[in-house]
Formats: sequence, structure tokens, C-alpha cells
Amino acid sequence: MSALIERLRKELGDQVDTSDAARAAHRHDSWMLAQLDDLQGRSAPQPAAVVHARSTADVSRTLSLCRELGVPVVPFGGGSGVCGAIQASPDTVVLSTRGLDGLLELDSYDMLARFRAGTMGGEAERRVQQDGLTIGHWPQSIELSTVGGWVATRAAGQYSTAYGNIEDVLFALEVVLPDGSVLRTRETPRASAGPDLRQLFMGSEGTLGVITEVTFSLRPLPEATRGAAFHFASLEQGLEALRSLMRVGWRPPVLRLYDSIESGRQFADWCPDGRALLILLHEGPEAAVAAEERAVAELCHAAGAEAGDPGSVTHWLEHRNQVPTFAELLESGLVVDTIEVATTWQRVPVLYDAVTSAVGELPSVRAVSAHSSHSYRSGTNLYFTFIAKPERREDMADTYRECWRRTMEACARLGAGIAHHHGIGRVRREQLADELGPVGTELLRTLKGALDPAGLLNPGALLPER
Amino acid sequence: MSALIERLRKELGDQVDTSDAARAAHRHDSWMLAQLDDLQGRSAPQPAAVVHARSTADVSRTLSLCRELGVPVVPFGGGSGVCGAIQASPDTVVLSTRGLDGLLELDSYDMLARFRAGTMGGEAERRVQQDGLTIGHWPQSIELSTVGGWVATRAAGQYSTAYGNIEDVLFALEVVLPDGSVLRTRETPRASAGPDLRQLFMGSEGTLGVITEVTFSLRPLPEATRGAAFHFASLEQGLEALRSLMRVGWRPPVLRLYDSIESGRQFADWCPDGRALLILLHEGPEAAVAAEERAVAELCHAAGAEAGDPGSVTHWLEHRNQVPTFAELLESGLVVDTIEVATTWQRVPVLYDAVTSAVGELPSVRAVSAHSSHSYRSGTNLYFTFIAKPERREDMADTYRECWRRTMEACARLGAGIAHHHGIGRVRREQLADELGPVGTELLRTLKGALDPAGLLNPGALLPER
Repeated sequence: MSALIERLRKELGDQVDTSDAARAAHRHDSWMLAQLDDLQGRSAPQPAAVVHARSTADVSRTLSLCRELGVPVVPFGGGSGVCGAIQASPDTVVLSTRGLDGLLELDSYDMLARFRAGTMGGEAERRVQQDGLTIGHWPQSIELSTVGGWVATRAAGQYSTAYGNIEDVLFALEVVLPDGSVLRTRETPRASAGPDLRQLFMGSEGTLGVITEVTFSLRPLPEATRGAAFHFASLEQGLEALRSLMRVGWRPPVLRLYDSIESGRQFADWCPDGRALLILLHEGPEAAVAAEERAVAELCHAAGAEAGDPGSVTHWLEHRNQVPTFAELLESGLVVDTIEVATTWQRVPVLYDAVTSAVGELPSVRAVSAHSSHSYRSGTNLYFTFIAKPERREDMADTYRECWRRTMEACARLGAGIAHHHGIGRVRREQLADELGPVGTELLRTLKGALDPAGLLNPGALLPER
Repeated sequence: MSALIERLRKELGDQVDTSDAARAAHRHDSWMLAQLDDLQGRSAPQPAAVVHARSTADVSRTLSLCRELGVPVVPFGGGSGVCGAIQASPDTVVLSTRGLDGLLELDSYDMLARFRAGTMGGEAERRVQQDGLTIGHWPQSIELSTVGGWVATRAAGQYSTAYGNIEDVLFALEVVLPDGSVLRTRETPRASAGPDLRQLFMGSEGTLGVITEVTFSLRPLPEATRGAAFHFASLEQGLEALRSLMRVGWRPPVLRLYDSIESGRQFADWCPDGRALLILLHEGPEAAVAAEERAVAELCHAAGAEAGDPGSVTHWLEHRNQVPTFAELLESGLVVDTIEVATTWQRVPVLYDAVTSAVGELPSVRAVSAHSSHSYRSGTNLYFTFIAKPERREDMADTYRECWRRTMEACARLGAGIAHHHGIGRVRREQLADELGPVGTELLRTLKGALDPAGLLNPGALLPER
């Protein structure tokens, strides 16, 4: 390790940071369990050093040297991941991409924006909005995450129902492979030229390469934006409305249906007690918005909806990215987390019941609830939230693990997808073997072995233990 | 080889076909150059045998045995590929998937249809239409190609501008890997669970696995379908109209703009001489169609269009899949082929000029023309057609190669994508190295080596020579 640090210093000078502050700040991402461990005195160890890359060449040099000397590397973007994909140890070097910052090219004619991967999401979006354009990708973490992190974690945004997920927004990328070579993909709107190599890195969570540049295909800011709200007797009734409007092809970018628990907790001023609230945002040319607004309202009423208070939409828009920090909750003895999964329409209500009852029957659990926020022709996601308060603080970690275990077990039993958009990291690593099946898991290991034979890129993340 | 055939016969009985008829019929796909070679007495050699798989287990058994005995396998679906991905030789066995036929499951509620991979496209579409649904994927080859072939070649359909390409329609797949193991992907509408493994096989052209089942996410048959036509002073003016309507988010499923040569050749009765014809189809709920129709007409007129004769749309719909067979053309001494490429809006007119002049200046070339038929926010495809008649029949193959070479060279020079939807096969194999760059090419080789170390799956297709 000292040999590596010396070699890195020779090449990258003071970009190689061994200060306590830098090493402490790059121990892990925002995973709840890592934060709990910190709080309870089981702090994660520090990496040996943090390399602040400022160029693709810096990333390439670092990966080459680490490969040469057999030292593991943990890539680090915004650090906002919530699944534990980032966890350093004294035998690792953290490679921060935050210094790879800024817009490289904005082409308003073709609606393409090329950013260095460490650009923060909010900055990127504000920059293209200056030119009347939008990336249209709004993860709740937009002010905490990097554009490269969006790609590495296969992220989704709040407007995904119309604008798609990161795979529908990403036009091209540059990624440094584990051997230090630099892949740049062709800037073409679509290709039938072998497997789509970009897909290998979307969701790779730093295990197959380090993303250094991303090019997004943008949209113009919409001519019209209008909100709408409805409420239903039950989540199931609301799901039928979602299904009916997705089926015929309406695509409001925001389409969020909350169960009665979340409707009461987050929208008490706007939704009658015990009802499931649906909030929508229509966007696009005025004529498209007008047609969609009318049709969606009709479909919702046909499914049993009552008109809701549009103030709920404004409320959501204003507060959508404000969540209490995990630290505050943990300090008050609460174990809280979200688990986003996805499945086909038929299985959604079954999965909702299975998870809420399996988790809800734990004595320390105060609430389990869910909403749907990303819909597709053949299914939707469920975004579960659990809140538990174990009697003894030393049981908090076990409680956390048990809530997760029961949710994942319900997904496996029902054949639902275990992760809609937060990724795998360490929290779902063992369940990935069920999601992919034995052959898929072995295939992923084969790909990893082929690109990174010594297993030096982000070891411990994504891939299940053998 | 005889040991393999004996072993295969023991396991698969009369599914192992060594008849001359079967072997002759499975020598190659519909690649123009292979047909020319046949015609000119340079017939491609026959495979040693054709295995008619009837189940996934048959495919698995065949691939395992071939791996064990080191015999190359050429997967064969509908045989309608036009790039030479399929080319047998006496040291290979052809594995036909056509016996893997039929619908396995149709779920109207979730709009999912699961087919065995050898089902013909037209049959699949007609079957789901019986239940009021559509796959929405309309390649010109729909009556000649299999649903598995659509996936293996990363196909596009005529309605792609609204309904997307095969990657937007494919929900899940089953594929037999080169070692005989069977991968089934999770039936979930979206996942952030590592790289999307389906993507590895879309466009793999039989080199990474044999697809045995595909599940599509369907759509309902549209409430309304209406055609429209416009014509422009130039292709460039028409392209501006396409860009303007794609930009704000209108998505007519069919959006085809022909240069004046093709407008004159194919739509002489409906388009004034020298004009570039645009034909469209709007589909969806009546209100959406009405809004789109009006808005698109306005945008077209703003770009300088004159209203066209809607009879052109009917004409296209009726004749869209009727093309003269290559054989007829070749017999009359004509060398004809299509080359579909794609690029960003800014580069489209430049690429059009570059290809038409580079190919057009060849003395034997009678015509080079193009249309755009698949549009995206940030660009579109160009589908070139060249027609040449060399003085001497023995120059036909060289003329063919030179037209291709010049087109590919223009793409490389301008940074355009070399293949929009026909794939690579053998005709574009060397240019793939430019498309992917040296690192991408090496990455693809690494993937191939990891899955198929002995290189037994469809050798000679897709991957450039070292």
C-alpha cells in the first residue's frame, strides 16, 4: 500500500489525500446500516487514501497502478447511495470522481449535453435549463448525487413515467475499464452493432469500471405543466386506475399513488382519512396536456376515484426532496428505511399485502407502508417504508436486517423484482442470486472475472458471496 | 464431426438432419452477396448437419455436445438476415430454432406474451391481435423472421418512433449459453440489479447464446389510427420538420421521410416531382390522435411543407412489406442493397450528401437514395438504397463491396452509427472496430472469450478479425 501511495503521489501529487478528514469522509455511502454502525461506535474503517481525480487520465492512471500493485479501489461519487455499495477498508484506496466536474458540451440543436461524471445532478439540470432544456431525470437525491452515479447505479427519477429511467436518457458514456483503458461509446441515437456496451456499466456500481463522462439526450422545458389529484377507497382501486391509463398509452411524467397510511402521513391536509391519494403531473405541448388531463380524469373516475385537492401536488413539488436525515431518526431510536421493488400489475397488490404483513408482524415495527411512483405498461414499482423502534437500542441493526430480509423473501416467493432503482450494494447482495438465478449470477461473475480478474474494483459490492 | 453427429442422433433422433435438402437450405441467410455467390456458381458450402431443436433442452444438449467435441454451431432462425451473420461450412452444425414454435402464455391483464423463439413474427402478431393486443414491432421481414431473431439481431420495426425498438418491447428472455446452461431473466418491468443481462444477447447475432423464449410487453390495439402526408422542397427541409416534432415530444408511430428520388420512385402517383414526401401514422386514444394530428400539421407547415395526398399512406401500408427478391434483381444484372445507419440531427444532411456523392460517383451506380424511418429526440436513421449495374457481371460482387465500403467510410469519417437495425453479420464486421473503437472492440472480444472460450458459437459473425 505504501508503495502504491508513493507511486500515486509521484503521478498525481496532492490529489492523493491521506488526511484523516478526507479518509473519514469517504468511508461509506449513505446506507442506513453504516450510519447506525457509526452512531453506535462500530464505525467503518478508513481507506488508506483518497485520490481526487481531476481528469479521465487521472482515473486511468489510478486504476492501472492499483492493478499493477494489486490494491483494491472503491469509486466514490456523491456518496448518496443507500444500499452500501461503498464501503472502504484500510487495504483499499478510494477514488473520488467529484473533481471531474462540469459541462463539456451543450448542443441545443441535437439536445445533447456532455458532462464530466462528477458533476452534481442539480447543477447539471440547472445548467441545461438556462438553455430552455431539461435532463428530465429527477432522483430525490438530485442535489446529493453525481450524474455518473446515476449511471453507475441505474437510477430512476421522479418523472420517469413519461421520460424514462437513466437508460432512456443516457446517450453515450466514457468509462475507464479496470485495466485503465478508456471506452467511449459512439454518439448515435440507436445502434444494432452488437450488444449495447453502455448497458454493462449501468448498474455496475463501480465493479466493472469508473464512469468519467456522460452524454444525455435532453428535452425542451415543457410548454405546459399541470397537476391533478384523485383519491381512492383503496390502494388496489388506485392501482387499477394506474394500469388503465398506462395501458392505453397516457404518460403523465409524475404518477404517484400512496397507500392510506402514507396519504395520511404526508398529505393529511389534502386527503380524506383512510383514502389512497394519487398525484399526477401532466407535461408537454398544451394540446397534449389538455387531452391527457381530460382522459386521465375520466379513467380515474371510472376506476372509482374522487377528485382530490391539487394543493397536494404543489405540496409534493415543494417538499419532494426533503427527507429527514437518517441520523436524526437513528438518534431517536427509530430504525427507518425504504425498499423499492417492482412487479407486474397482477402481483402488485399481492406483494403489497405480503410485505406489509410480514414486516408488520414484527413487534417493534410501528408502520409499514408503500407508494407506487414509476409505472410501466406491464407493471409498476412499490416503494416500501418501514419504521421500527426496538425496545433496546442494541437490537436496532438486527431489526433493520429482519425488515429487509422479510421484504426480500416476499419478493423471491412471488417472483417480484428485488430492486427498482436503488441498486444492490451490500444490503441486497445475497438476494441478487435469487433475482438473477444461478445461471445469471454465474454469468455476472464471469463478466466480472473477464474485466477485473483480480477483483480489485469495488470488492464486496453487488456480487453475492459464492 | 461424425462422432458429434452420432452423439446428437443418440439424443435427438431424427431431429438431426443430414439430408442434402436441409443442409442446402441452411447454408446462409438472405445476405445479398451470398445470393450473388450462389447465382454465380460460388455457392457457399453446406453444414455437416442441421439440428431441428424442439425444446430448450434440445438446444442445451446440442450446445453442450458441440462444446464437448469442439464443433462450431451456427444458430438459424428465419434466415431473413441481410448482413451475412449466418454462413455455414462443412465443419459446422446448424442449429435451427424454427421448431421452437408457438405461444406459451398470453396475459391480457399485464399485457405480456411469452413465445418460443422460433415463432414467426407475423404469427405472433396475429395471435396477440386476437385478444385485442399488439406487439407493435413491425420489421419489413415480419413474415420471414422469428421473434427470437428480432432479439438476436436487435431489430427495429416500422412503428418504432412511438413504440420503440426491440429493446423497448422485450420484457424477459430465456437464452441457452454456450456451455449449455439456461438463463431466464426475471419478469419485472424494470430493475436496478446489476447490468441488464438481456442486453448482452440483444444484437449478439448468435455469438453469445441461443435465444429460446421471449416475453414481450404488449399494447392494446389503438382506438384510433389516422394517416397524414406532407411534402417538402428538400429532404433537409423535411428533416427540420421531423426534428421539430420529435423535439417537443409528438410520437407518431410511423414517420417516414423520403428523398425526392425515392418519393418519385415509390410514390409517383401521390407526390409532385422533385419533392420529398413525408408519410405519418398517428395512433392511440382518439383525443391524443386528434391533438397530435393538428400539432404535427402545424409544425410541418411551419417548416415549409405542403399537404400531401393521404393515398400515399394507404399505398405504403398496403405495399410496405413487398420488396422484389434480391434474386430477381441479381438475375437482371442489378446489384441492389440497403444500408441503414443513424446519426444526430446536425450530421444527417451531411451524411446524406457524403454517402450519395461517394457512392453516386461510381460509374456503374444508377441511383443512390435514402429515407428516414426511425426518429429520436437527438437524431434519426438514414436508410440508403443503392442500385448499380456493372458492365460485366463478374464485377457485380466488387461493385457491391465498393458501395458498402464507401458508405461505411463516410460514417466513420463523420462519426455516424454504422448500423441502425440490420446488424453487423459479415458485411459490416470490419467496420465494427471503428464503431466500437479499439477499447470497445477488445471489450466485446473479452465478453465473447469469457462466455465462449473456444469460439464455437457462430464463428465469423459480428466480431472483426484481429
